[in-house]
Amino acid sequence: MTEHAHSPYLEDIPLEEALARWWSALADAGLDRPLPGESVALEDAAGRITAEPVWALISSPHYHAAAMDGYAVRAEETRGATETHPVHLDVGQQAFYVDTGDPLPPGTNAVIMVEDVQVRESTNQRIRESANPQSAIEVLAAVAPWQHVRPMGEDMVATELILPANHRLRPQDIGAAAGAGHPRLSVRRRPRVAIQPTGTELVAPGSTLRPGDIVEYNSLVLGAMIAEWGGAATRMPPLADDYAAIRGRILEAAQTHDLVIVNAGSSAGSEDFTARIVAELGQLLVHGIAVRPGHPVILGMIEARQADGLQPSIVNRRVPFIGLPGYPVSAAITCELLVKPTVARWLGQPADERPQIDATITRKVVSPEGDEEFLRVTVGQVGERVVATPLAGGSGILMSLVRADGIVRIPRGEGGFEPGASVTVDLNRPPAVIRRTLVAIGSHDLTLDLLADELGQRHPGWRLSSANVGSLGGLLALARGEAHFAGSHLLDEATGEYNVAYIKRYLPGVPVVVLGFVQREQGLIVPKGNPKGIRALADLTRPDVVFINRQRGAGTRVLLDYRLKQAGIRPAAIQGYERQEFTHLAVAAAVASGAADCGIGILAAARALGLDFVPLDHERYDLIIPARFYDEPVLMRLLEICRDPAFAARVTALGGYTTDDMGTVLARV
Amino acid sequence: MTEHAHSPYLEDIPLEEALARWWSALADAGLDRPLPGESVALEDAAGRITAEPVWALISSPHYHAAAMDGYAVRAEETRGATETHPVHLDVGQQAFYVDTGDPLPPGTNAVIMVEDVQVRESTNQRIRESANPQSAIEVLAAVAPWQHVRPMGEDMVATELILPANHRLRPQDIGAAAGAGHPRLSVRRRPRVAIQPTGTELVAPGSTLRPGDIVEYNSLVLGAMIAEWGGAATRMPPLADDYAAIRGRILEAAQTHDLVIVNAGSSAGSEDFTARIVAELGQLLVHGIAVRPGHPVILGMIEARQADGLQPSIVNRRVPFIGLPGYPVSAAITCELLVKPTVARWLGQPADERPQIDATITRKVVSPEGDEEFLRVTVGQVGERVVATPLAGGSGILMSLVRADGIVRIPRGEGGFEPGASVTVDLNRPPAVIRRTLVAIGSHDLTLDLLADELGQRHPGWRLSSANVGSLGGLLALARGEAHFAGSHLLDEATGEYNVAYIKRYLPGVPVVVLGFVQREQGLIVPKGNPKGIRALADLTRPDVVFINRQRGAGTRVLLDYRLKQAGIRPAAIQGYERQEFTHLAVAAAVASGAADCGIGILAAARALGLDFVPLDHERYDLIIPARFYDEPVLMRLLEICRDPAFAARVTALGGYTTDDMGTVLARV
Repeated sequence: MTEHAHSPYLEDIPLEEALARWWSALADAGLDRPLPGESVALEDAAGRITAEPVWALISSPHYHAAAMDGYAVRAEETRGATETHPVHLDVGQQAFYVDTGDPLPPGTNAVIMVEDVQVRESTNQRIRESANPQSAIEVLAAVAPWQHVRPMGEDMVATELILPANHRLRPQDIGAAAGAGHPRLSVRRRPRVAIQPTGTELVAPGSTLRPGDIVEYNSLVLGAMIAEWGGAATRMPPLADDYAAIRGRILEAAQTHDLVIVNAGSSAGSEDFTARIVAELGQLLVHGIAVRPGHPVILGMIEARQADGLQPSIVNRRVPFIGLPGYPVSAAITCELLVKPTVARWLGQPADERPQIDATITRKVVSPEGDEEFLRVTVGQVGERVVATPLAGGSGILMSLVRADGIVRIPRGEGGFEPGASVTVDLNRPPAVIRRTLVAIGSHDLTLDLLADELGQRHPGWRLSSANVGSLGGLLALARGEAHFAGSHLLDEATGEYNVAYIKRYLPGVPVVVLGFVQREQGLIVPKGNPKGIRALADLTRPDVVFINRQRGAGTRVLLDYRLKQAGIRPAAIQGYERQEFTHLAVAAAVASGAADCGIGILAAARALGLDFVPLDHERYDLIIPARFYDEPVLMRLLEICRDPAFAARVTALGGYTTDDMGTVLARV
Repeated sequence: MTEHAHSPYLEDIPLEEALARWWSALADAGLDRPLPGESVALEDAAGRITAEPVWALISSPHYHAAAMDGYAVRAEETRGATETHPVHLDVGQQAFYVDTGDPLPPGTNAVIMVEDVQVRESTNQRIRESANPQSAIEVLAAVAPWQHVRPMGEDMVATELILPANHRLRPQDIGAAAGAGHPRLSVRRRPRVAIQPTGTELVAPGSTLRPGDIVEYNSLVLGAMIAEWGGAATRMPPLADDYAAIRGRILEAAQTHDLVIVNAGSSAGSEDFTARIVAELGQLLVHGIAVRPGHPVILGMIEARQADGLQPSIVNRRVPFIGLPGYPVSAAITCELLVKPTVARWLGQPADERPQIDATITRKVVSPEGDEEFLRVTVGQVGERVVATPLAGGSGILMSLVRADGIVRIPRGEGGFEPGASVTVDLNRPPAVIRRTLVAIGSHDLTLDLLADELGQRHPGWRLSSANVGSLGGLLALARGEAHFAGSHLLDEATGEYNVAYIKRYLPGVPVVVLGFVQREQGLIVPKGNPKGIRALADLTRPDVVFINRQRGAGTRVLLDYRLKQAGIRPAAIQGYERQEFTHLAVAAAVASGAADCGIGILAAARALGLDFVPLDHERYDLIIPARFYDEPVLMRLLEICRDPAFAARVTALGGYTTDDMGTVLARV
């Protein structure tokens, strides 16, 4: 699973050029058109794509049907009937009882509702002397021809077009096909896609991990994507980085699949064999595409030859090949760029159906001019504005795809965006979800994860999206109207008070509510057993102690700097003071891994990773809510949770938290 | 399958009241909350709903990993390195070759890219004398600590929230769960829904039909809807209208399902047993809801008792019950109103995710004040406007659901809409499809179906939506800006010329292009063998001949009236002159069924149903295209097809058509 962000060995051509070569090679092989149809039973047809137009074989109804319960009659025989001058009709000769859906007896052309007749003895001598003499009706109102009748073909007429080709079958379409006389339909065969993971270090999900092991999940992600697009994915067992084994497996997969994907090994490193194998087995069309994340992508055409020991029937079969990069975000994004349109073409479908939304970008984005960038963003509706916030993280951060609500494409040659720029987001959630998203930008606390979980459990479909930019960043985001609330724990050095002084300084003229949330313990996170015997801030200057800090603007860092100043300790004297992480858990993880001997953070983060903790301070972590949102329905759900003792109990169970002020308005500024 | 549109035996309560009773009964039974989770393997989890929050069990990466191919070093040992003063490091002691993804060897904290080093002989005596003396590197540039390293937990940190509960799993979520150490996930069990079709007249799709047989397709439609919403539907074999059999089957289904649906028999007719059965087996909550189409709906709660011979384990189990009406549109719409939110609740999902679009309604709609109406509409974007056109057809016209692009809800107490009113459409196709829809409103011709098929085949995702309102109706729709083009064959009695005079009269000031399409044969459609010997228009006045006409404004009717006038025949002398159908095929179907002896229409319609034909006239059927659309890309695709001889060949193969002018501009008016 080797990858260069920008390898000198790759040609790195623009996406459109890569696609042009791809479609041209597919066209040469006659593979640029929809796949033939296969016959499926109607009960298996939902969501499939029609391979042919569907014409009605029969009419529906296929006979004149009663549309009411009543008596079928010949309308002309009821002419002039009124309540005072009813018309007598003999049942069985002139009138026939019918239930809704029954066929009209021959010679009749209308149905009288039971309410409009009275049953009488027949006036017909023969009937009156029969076993059932009360077999006449008095018609109290004339009926028009074809009244209360569903005429044959009312719904559909034989030979009529019911569904066009290339149509995705919805439930009602399947009913219509049945009504039109089809017990089965011809639908596009699902494109068969083989996914071959490669990498000596790959292990299955859930395995016990040794350093260097990598959990093989890309094939799960790619397989689920391809299934979602209508393909049939085969996940092959992983292979080690072995030239002969990979070559053999590619040839084997090409025998039974429409497309072969090899995941990783697509770059030009010492164990990246794929490009060489493709060139040997057929044609290497593209090696390297200037998209970010992406870059090391291979496009090719495998030509299975008799010399390869294949059965004569598949000799000279040409099978498209795609090599995808190993980093999970790169793999997913390039799969969508290349495999999705190919599968769509084979299904006779247009390439992209993603809903889009226009949004304002909240931060400056710098993008390499030579690349087309696919920026992952969260999207939220804050008041009238739809805001898109770029997610940090490189091509290895799968969580950036999990957290993303959509993708903003930055074309090549555009260097990025200034804050406030208008962008179009390709959403990967339904737009309705965006309207049900509470946007939190600010300081990170573990309890926000609990809040997000409670919100989703109590209000299905509602969601809390939280971006961790530190307390000060949160206040600035509120000032720009980008969030519904911000978690903040900014200590004012002058007064020893939390948040209010900062709100006055950074949110002038914006009325806000300061809502109590949690008090929590801040301190030094140290390895289990505190091997270096760290007891106080003064220990941070020891030459054997490497520290890990939080980023500038984080309340935790403000607190640290305040305490360092009080204690007369110079930051420059602390090894690692400049190295910063963005969350408490990331600091704890750095300590757990041995990357640092000590970090600043909250007790809950230390507990979560089984670390020890040297308490320094007890601090308030409040939610800062602009007054214009505080009274809006969007925040009701949040307040309700904050004021529920059951939620407070969940929070205190984490350890290191007290919740005395949770849900209380501490100040209005 | 008995149904009254408005039975006096039904209570017909408002939808919101019915839903209130339903939720309250479900709450009483403890059935108003999400179902418990079941464990599924990750490869089966896509699209399922998380039953619990997913926390990271492990960090990812779970070790410090090289982010580049290169040499792992201790950054501090490279301090001061430049090209002119490189730093020597011994490989295997101070520097270690790593591939991307490899763990950093103990004591190292950065990776130098291969490009930034030169491999040299070691300066270490022992190494220089070993088998591999070239095992030192010269570092040409200093590296910072953690450069080119993916630190442990960079993607996710153990204990972090990865996914909330009640979240629909996307491909990337499954990858994240795998990366977080989960080989399986707990997802909401799919609600098990039994669908029981009832009706003595029901037969399976594809059966040979006798009059009175009804193809049972509602369970296919309902089953596919429920599957789409995330439920597991069981389609039970149809039952005849038999009290004991239906009662037994309901009890049986209740043992293994979360919800039992009986389709049809929900009204109050002579064979409608369902409401009585539900009252006997438990509680009848609602019988009749004031929605249209809909009305005869049953909501109830089955209480399975030991007395019913059930296993002790399920004694006193309460199982929700829904009886749906038999007409297909009623069944589908009420299923969506009642079953969809129930399934969503059980899955912890919000009820409705349908995309909406604002549109202008094109025609007057009259709705019964007492009902909430669900109006089926087609939707198209014509120029800047999004227009919604109501579809004709009652609750038996399944094709109205097939043709519909969405539903407009008309609340109770609102009598409908005037033309031009703004409405919100709940779409049942992706919004992108609407932008790719060519809207034709006007005269009907079979060749429009072929055109629709060609468009979809040649341009996947593109669609032709055609509404049949007659030639004159089409011109009026163009005048109101509701369509991209109209098929028209209006003969001017004064000049004997087609269309132009009408365009001048009805589209004053609107520049249009008259595009030649087909010439076709109009005549009298008669049964096979022409049993009544109809030879000319004069035969229509014979007392033994019943005629079927086209609607007012149809070009075919204009033609008939012109010829009748020429021949001096009074319309009143023709039996059936007032009875009208809206399409050629509907006229042919009326003749085929014996409802009429003779109708007016085109040869192709007679051929399609195997009827005979008495030619009267050869006429032009043109496409009238406003000039503002003619040059737009939206119409390019249409023109390209019209000008392709392969398409003309398909048309002439229908019989009765010539295509000499197809694709030619005949006039600009």
